[in-house]
Amino acid sequence: MNAGPAVTGGPVVTFGDRLEQVFDTQGQLCVGIDPHSWLLGEWNLPDTAAGVESFGRAVVAAAAGRVGIVKPQVAFFERFGSAGFLALERVLADARQAGLLVIGDAKRGDLGTSVEAYAQAWFTPGSPLEVDALTLAAYMGVGSLDSPLTLAAANGKGVFLLAATSNSEAANIQRAIVADGPYTGSTVARAILDDVGARNARAGAADAGAASARPATGLGSIGVVLGATLDLADFGIDVRQAPGEFRTPVLAPGFGHQGGNIMDLPGIYGEYAGGVIVSESRSVLSAGPHRIEEAIERRVAEVGAVRG
Amino acid sequence: MNAGPAVTGGPVVTFGDRLEQVFDTQGQLCVGIDPHSWLLGEWNLPDTAAGVESFGRAVVAAAAGRVGIVKPQVAFFERFGSAGFLALERVLADARQAGLLVIGDAKRGDLGTSVEAYAQAWFTPGSPLEVDALTLAAYMGVGSLDSPLTLAAANGKGVFLLAATSNSEAANIQRAIVADGPYTGSTVARAILDDVGARNARAGAADAGAASARPATGLGSIGVVLGATLDLADFGIDVRQAPGEFRTPVLAPGFGHQGGNIMDLPGIYGEYAGGVIVSESRSVLSAGPHRIEEAIERRVAEVGAVRG
Repeated sequence: MNAGPAVTGGPVVTFGDRLEQVFDTQGQLCVGIDPHSWLLGEWNLPDTAAGVESFGRAVVAAAAGRVGIVKPQVAFFERFGSAGFLALERVLADARQAGLLVIGDAKRGDLGTSVEAYAQAWFTPGSPLEVDALTLAAYMGVGSLDSPLTLAAANGKGVFLLAATSNSEAANIQRAIVADGPYTGSTVARAILDDVGARNARAGAADAGAASARPATGLGSIGVVLGATLDLADFGIDVRQAPGEFRTPVLAPGFGHQGGNIMDLPGIYGEYAGGVIVSESRSVLSAGPHRIEEAIERRVAEVGAVRG
Repeated sequence: MNAGPAVTGGPVVTFGDRLEQVFDTQGQLCVGIDPHSWLLGEWNLPDTAAGVESFGRAVVAAAAGRVGIVKPQVAFFERFGSAGFLALERVLADARQAGLLVIGDAKRGDLGTSVEAYAQAWFTPGSPLEVDALTLAAYMGVGSLDSPLTLAAANGKGVFLLAATSNSEAANIQRAIVADGPYTGSTVARAILDDVGARNARAGAADAGAASARPATGLGSIGVVLGATLDLADFGIDVRQAPGEFRTPVLAPGFGHQGGNIMDLPGIYGEYAGGVIVSESRSVLSAGPHRIEEAIERRVAEVGAVRG
């Protein structure tokens, strides 16, 4: 692979630190890059790989300087096979050029050398699919993701693990009760949140003890996905209780089009609220190519007004 | 998308029927196409997109006429981004040309229009990534996969849902106890197996009632992944009890290199044994480019000797 080191000399800056810096300077809004076929139609773009490329690059151009984070949904590019991935690579290159933090929404998951190969694809510096963070699914257990978590940390990358999602069909699995191991008695979603919290604490403590001397408190580099339209208490999650140090970042879809009200963010996420990435797609993208900048600025102001 | 109908006139032949036909004529062995970087080295191939393409096409050439099913692991192609997907597309084209049934091992999963986009990528006839079946993960619930299941059925494609996997870290989630809905009290793995079984029964009954008049018993088109090195009783699964009609096919990794003994197949899978796809990768691939045909033939004989 044509991979060179991203950082030459000095310790790698963690994803959590980079995320915190983005929050401080550009706020918590993340613009989704979701080229649905119907959105392509509304944007007068063809439903082809060229169409998703034009769409993605236009969204990046509109996001640059207005927000700090974008989140391409990989499925809409994969729809066109290798040509779609080539389009995605060009969108990612634009986003890197613009200094945006990129979360690849791929929800990958596997075991052993297979999941390691996914990690190499998305986390290797210089890889055509290089992103700053990737969403992963842990149906085979959080421990099955050790190799991507390790590779992410080594390269200053982040991971967002699905924990509690907004769809009603998820309850079967995400609210099931763990029956053995250290999280016995927790829901699956709560077990993932706690496991991630413990990993962030360990990584943070190790970094704080090292010469790099990152601040003693801060954001961890392993986040979770917690839907905004949920009552997290239904998953046995008490958001008033969160680790005070090395907090777990939260990727929150569901504000905007899906019905979550941004004014409710502090109530929904409690102690996690300061680490929430507010991800919006349709509410911004449906403004169309000529009004998307205005739509982003409006949402930036609304999300910014909520931050304590 | 450059998609045309696969079947012109007449009902779509289901994946289950196609799989049963392959079992009858070519047996239950499936050859994995897993171009690890160390295997590429052993095969004297470069660790590049060109290397994985050469590897994949050589495995297809060796498999053709010896087995009926191949399973490319998508992660090893994704590692090289769009160039890797182009390599995969060429491997898939060779496999289609050779009449092999192809299971794309992608373990995709998402919600709504995103998971629908994955389904379009892999199930649309004429799509560059078209396969006969795809592995999916249901961390967001089996119901979250309704759109790929629908698109698969409409195009005579199959799906394999992760249920119980062989890695120890999976127990947290796969053995958790469902706490609400129709599968309350089951393990997550068992709930998925039962949900899939019910879906196969409904689809089979509908087909049997229609003019297409497929046989009243047979294999369903929605399968599950059940690791071969497990005691399925630990997941609350009693393999002596399986639906007699519209049986659920099982994709079984773990024989060969991972330590599962093919002679144990009937004991491990019980009533499901006749619908098990025995998937082997390393045990065959590590024979190298000059001895892979011989290795496949040996495993075909061993797996064939076990079938009742």
